[in-house]
Parts: sequence; structure tokens; C-alpha cells
Amino acid sequence: MKIELSDLEDFARGAAFLGTGGGGDPYIGRLLATHAIKEFGTPKIIDPEDLADDALVFAIAMLGAPTVLVEKAACGDDIDLAIDKLSERLGRRPDALIPIEIGGINSTIPIVASARSGIPLVNADGMGRAFPEIQMVTFNVYGYPPAPLSIVDEHLNAVVVDAKDAKTAEDLVRSVAIQMGLSVMTANYPISGSVVKKYAVKHTLTLALEIGRAISRGRAQGEPVDSLLAYLGSTEYYKHCKILFDGKIVDIKRETTKGFSVGHCRIDPLTGDGDSMEIIFQNENLVAKVKDKLLAMVPDLVCVVDRETAEPIPVEALRYGQRVKIIGASVPPVMRTPEAIKIFGPRAFGFEEDYVPIENISM
Amino acid sequence: MKIELSDLEDFARGAAFLGTGGGGDPYIGRLLATHAIKEFGTPKIIDPEDLADDALVFAIAMLGAPTVLVEKAACGDDIDLAIDKLSERLGRRPDALIPIEIGGINSTIPIVASARSGIPLVNADGMGRAFPEIQMVTFNVYGYPPAPLSIVDEHLNAVVVDAKDAKTAEDLVRSVAIQMGLSVMTANYPISGSVVKKYAVKHTLTLALEIGRAISRGRAQGEPVDSLLAYLGSTEYYKHCKILFDGKIVDIKRETTKGFSVGHCRIDPLTGDGDSMEIIFQNENLVAKVKDKLLAMVPDLVCVVDRETAEPIPVEALRYGQRVKIIGASVPPVMRTPEAIKIFGPRAFGFEEDYVPIENISM
Repeated sequence: MKIELSDLEDFARGAAFLGTGGGGDPYIGRLLATHAIKEFGTPKIIDPEDLADDALVFAIAMLGAPTVLVEKAACGDDIDLAIDKLSERLGRRPDALIPIEIGGINSTIPIVASARSGIPLVNADGMGRAFPEIQMVTFNVYGYPPAPLSIVDEHLNAVVVDAKDAKTAEDLVRSVAIQMGLSVMTANYPISGSVVKKYAVKHTLTLALEIGRAISRGRAQGEPVDSLLAYLGSTEYYKHCKILFDGKIVDIKRETTKGFSVGHCRIDPLTGDGDSMEIIFQNENLVAKVKDKLLAMVPDLVCVVDRETAEPIPVEALRYGQRVKIIGASVPPVMRTPEAIKIFGPRAFGFEEDYVPIENISM
Repeated sequence: MKIELSDLEDFARGAAFLGTGGGGDPYIGRLLATHAIKEFGTPKIIDPEDLADDALVFAIAMLGAPTVLVEKAACGDDIDLAIDKLSERLGRRPDALIPIEIGGINSTIPIVASARSGIPLVNADGMGRAFPEIQMVTFNVYGYPPAPLSIVDEHLNAVVVDAKDAKTAEDLVRSVAIQMGLSVMTANYPISGSVVKKYAVKHTLTLALEIGRAISRGRAQGEPVDSLLAYLGSTEYYKHCKILFDGKIVDIKRETTKGFSVGHCRIDPLTGDGDSMEIIFQNENLVAKVKDKLLAMVPDLVCVVDRETAEPIPVEALRYGQRVKIIGASVPPVMRTPEAIKIFGPRAFGFEEDYVPIENISM
């Protein structure tokens, strides 16, 4: 596949949908990618299957609270330096880059990194969605931790972390990111081509682009949410999808704490009659519930979109009075194994419920 | 000079005196050094003048709140790894090690590092005393910042920091140290032999040992505080020395906050009549005052010693009812220039007073 300048709007919108509320303003990500492609050319995107088994692959991401990401934009030198510092640590430059998540700004930062560096970008990612913590990645689920990794701020201060386990890596990265002002570039998960081929969520760059295109097509035809659902239903990963709620936002509580944007949002039915839906988020939307029943839960997708335009609404843009549809969707099988649910199922986020796949929940 | 097993008690006690309340329990440092010398042999101590101009020198230190240092002891592998990680970052191993400060446990950690690694130790340090923050070092005062540096915890998690300036390095190091549990090993200030020769405070290993010996001699003769003062008066650095107060501790407030042990201590005259002295500390004792008059202030030394035995009392060992003498002493000229006072004079610690050398203050 290719991502051209003319694809960036659809791609960023599709990635914002898969970001399930997290990952920052897709408009910022799109601006960064536009700038990088204009200056450095279209990045080379390769299929996971094209990687040599012993190829070295780095994940590239921006890390911080989306509320802060919106206010700062990467300058580019920080992205290059993150790659350089991890390369220096490993004594070897990467053969390819991969998005750590296919959500929000972190789907476009790797495009910027690939365009600037000339290092190919793999059409895959480590989540098939977005998650707030650096250990919540398929590579880690299956035994490949995030460190060694590098963290770079906009002043080009750099930190390289070697951690014994993923939780320690997350704790150290979070402390450093908070100290650096909660908007840092990180190169992490130095993994081999064979690990990517086994455990990455594949072809998600293509999926993000096609989700964005489905919304655009739907807008032209007057039914963007229907078009979006029809496309999701046709995919292997997101095929179990449905509208969980249709209403207007009546309450929103959001705070930036311990390096995350956490809170909840209440949505009333448009008619005013009937039960409300509550969505709880930590950077990303985690669960959608009505009364005490969870209608969708991590790692399945809970997405808030504008009910007329299907525009994905990130957590930091949720506002009182917005009329929205809440869409739930399944995730790839590699994200739903017992090992995976342990790392990013509902209990990993402090909920008391066991994971139930969205297709098994009656509404 | 040499530091033999039989010297360690005097050396650690002298270093505790120069630690001015900071740097942790000298007994712990002594145990660590004893263990290392028994296992690996006496470290080779070299004169600063013996360094080649282009020699590479690392400072080695434990970093954290002394209240925590007391409870954890370095295992040794963490010290080795700190040296390894900074060497890896620089592509070169050090030709010599140097204590960052000659106070408390950080005067013996470099002995451990040198004994274990076989890398010679320079008879000098970066403070001629102890200070709580990593930028408060003569090398930094004169333009040689602390990063790149490495930080390693007892589980051998490692972080390497490249910071644009010393304040950023301190902030990042402090965040990481707090996350790691406030007791970490760090290799820092990679500097050349010529910088050591120009800006280090020289022969302070010898001075620490001789201060300890003066206390021991005094104990044998029945006047340890007098013996200590007589020796200090004979040195080039600490010659302006005096007893600032003689009394008993009646109030002590101490808390561990933001990675430091901060607080103050009030001492009443033994007779109960007359004004009290107050000592304010941040890991180290910073100022000694009576009413509103500062009788000694950083960077000059403020030391609390047992009034009978001259045993230096670290901040974390201050107790109600202790009978103590407070000793003030000058520091080397390299620590008293306007550039130096800007980094570790009273205003650098938030006091409103300008620095006045102890010899210019009437009591």
C-alpha cells in the first residue's frame, strides 16, 4: 500500500476512530504527516511478510496525555533523535519502523518518522487500536517487552531505559514523560521481523485508511455512520460491530492525573426518556455501560462519533450537548487471547468484570 | 595515599563530618567498602596531577534521600552496571573514577566501585563537602554538566540520561530516582583529566581520613572536639572553623519530600538560658542561625557533632535530647567564587540572604 498526501485526511480520520477517543487530535497528526511527506517524500510502506526474520524493527510513538499532545507538536528532530538513541543503545539501526498503535496521532508519527529517515514502515501495529500504557502491546503480551527504549523531549533531552520487565518500563517511562512535560517521542519495542510476523496486528494502516474512506463515502451518500458500520462489518478484525447508543452528552468529567487523561462521560437518549450510557476512559474509552451492564469493554472498541457526520470524537473534544452515536466493535483474535486479556482486558484497568466479547453481549 | 581496611573507620567518620548531616549513615558506607576491599583488594588511589589531560573520568555516587539509603545497601552489581552503561553511551571506559562529593556514603561508594572494577580512584571530589543536588558540583559550576549519566536500581533496571543542561539533568534524575525507590547508583560527570586538574577539590580523600584520625586521636586524649578543630584549623580548606553553638536538641522536624530529606532542628543552650540555634537542612545542613542571624551558611560547612565524642550526627539520626556542638567551617576557594555561590550559595536553596563567608561573621 501507499499513503499519499491526498490519503492523509481519510487515514487520520480512520485512525482517530480506531483510537477510541485516545491518541490526540488527528488534525495535528495529519499536519505533521503532510509537512513530512511534502519535505521528505512518501514513506515506503512494506508488508509484514516482506520483513526478513532477523530484521530489526522499532516501534515509534508519541507518549503523553492527549490533552497535552494537542498543545505541542513534534518538531521532527525529536523523532530522529529517538531513533538515533535507541540505535546507539543497540549498536544497530532499524531495518523498519512500526506503529505501536493504530490510533490517533500515533498512527501518523511513524509516517513522519519513516518519511524523515527513509526507513520503511510496516503495514501493521502492536494493538489494532490504541491503549494508554506502553506494556499494552501484543509484542509484550507474547514475551517481547518494550525496553530498551528511548524517550526524547522537544528540547532534545534524551533518556534511554533498560528495564527488567514491561511494568517497570511503563513506570519509568511515565515518570520521565511527566518530568519532560507529558509530550515526548519514544522509540521502543526493538523486535525482530519474525516477532512482527507472528504477533503484530497486520494491515492496520490499510484498515485505518479504508475506515476513513468509508466515512467519506458515507458523507457523500448522506449516511456516514451506516457506511462506516458496513465497512467495519466487512473486515476480519472489526466485523462484530454495532451501535451501542444514540444520544446527547449531558455530563463530562475529565482530568489529567498521573500522566493520563481520565474521566467519564454520560450520554442521555435524544428523547430524554430511558436509561443513560456511561463511558469511562483513561486516554482511550475503556467501557460503555448502561445502568450496571457493560455493553462493550476493552480490548473491544468503544468509539464516540458525531451522529450526523460519523466524525470520531477524541476524549479531549467531548463537550456537553454533542449529539453522538456510540459504536462498539470487536478486535483481532490476537488481542483476545487469555494472555492478551490479562494485559489489557477490563481487570487490567481496575474493573471488576471479566472480559466478554462484544458479540456475546445482548443489548 | 592509600585507604586500607584499618583506615575505613576513620575515613568514614571524617567523610560523615564533611557530609554535614547528609550522605547517609557512614556505618553502611564503611560496611560496603570493607566488603569490597576484602573481596577485590585495596583500590588504587591516584593524585589528580597524575591524570593525563585527555583521561576520561566518571563521578560515581549513590543518589536518594538518606533516610532511604539507610534501609537499602548497594549490592555491587548496580555499581558495575552504572559504569558499564555510561561507558556504553560514550563508547569508552573510564580511566579513573572520582567521588562526586566527599560526604557520607558517597565518599565510600567510589572506593567500592574502584575496588570492584580495578579502575583507579582520584584523590579529589566535586564539592569538598556534600550537597543534595546533582548540579551542585564544581565541574558544573565551571561549565561541565553532569550528563550524559547513568542511573541503575538494585534490580539492575538502568536509565541513561542526555540532558541539555544541569537543571534538566537534576530534574530527570530526581524523577527517575523517585520512581526507582530513592536509592540508586549513578555514574555521571564524564570529564577529562584536565577538567579534574582545574576544577576538582583536591586531596579530599586524604582530608576525610585525617579528620577522622583527628577525632580518634582526640578521643584517646579526652578532647575529641578540640582535636577536630585543631586539625581543621591546620588545613588549607577548612581553616576558618569555630564552634557555633553548644547545647541540646529540643525540636526536630524532618520529612522526605520530592526526593529529599528536608526539615529543621532547634538546639537550646545546655543551661536552658539564652537564645536557641536553628539548623535548616535539605539532606545536608544548609544554615545555622540564632534569632534571625545566620552564623554559617552554604557552601560553608555546618556540622552537628556529639559534644563529648565529636561523632558527626547525620540528619536522619538527629534525636530529641542529644547534646551536641555545632561546628562551622570554611570551604575551598573554588567553592566560594561568584559562579559557585550562584549554584550552591544560600539563594540557590531559597534563602533570602547573600552569602557571607564564615570568617566574616561575628558571633
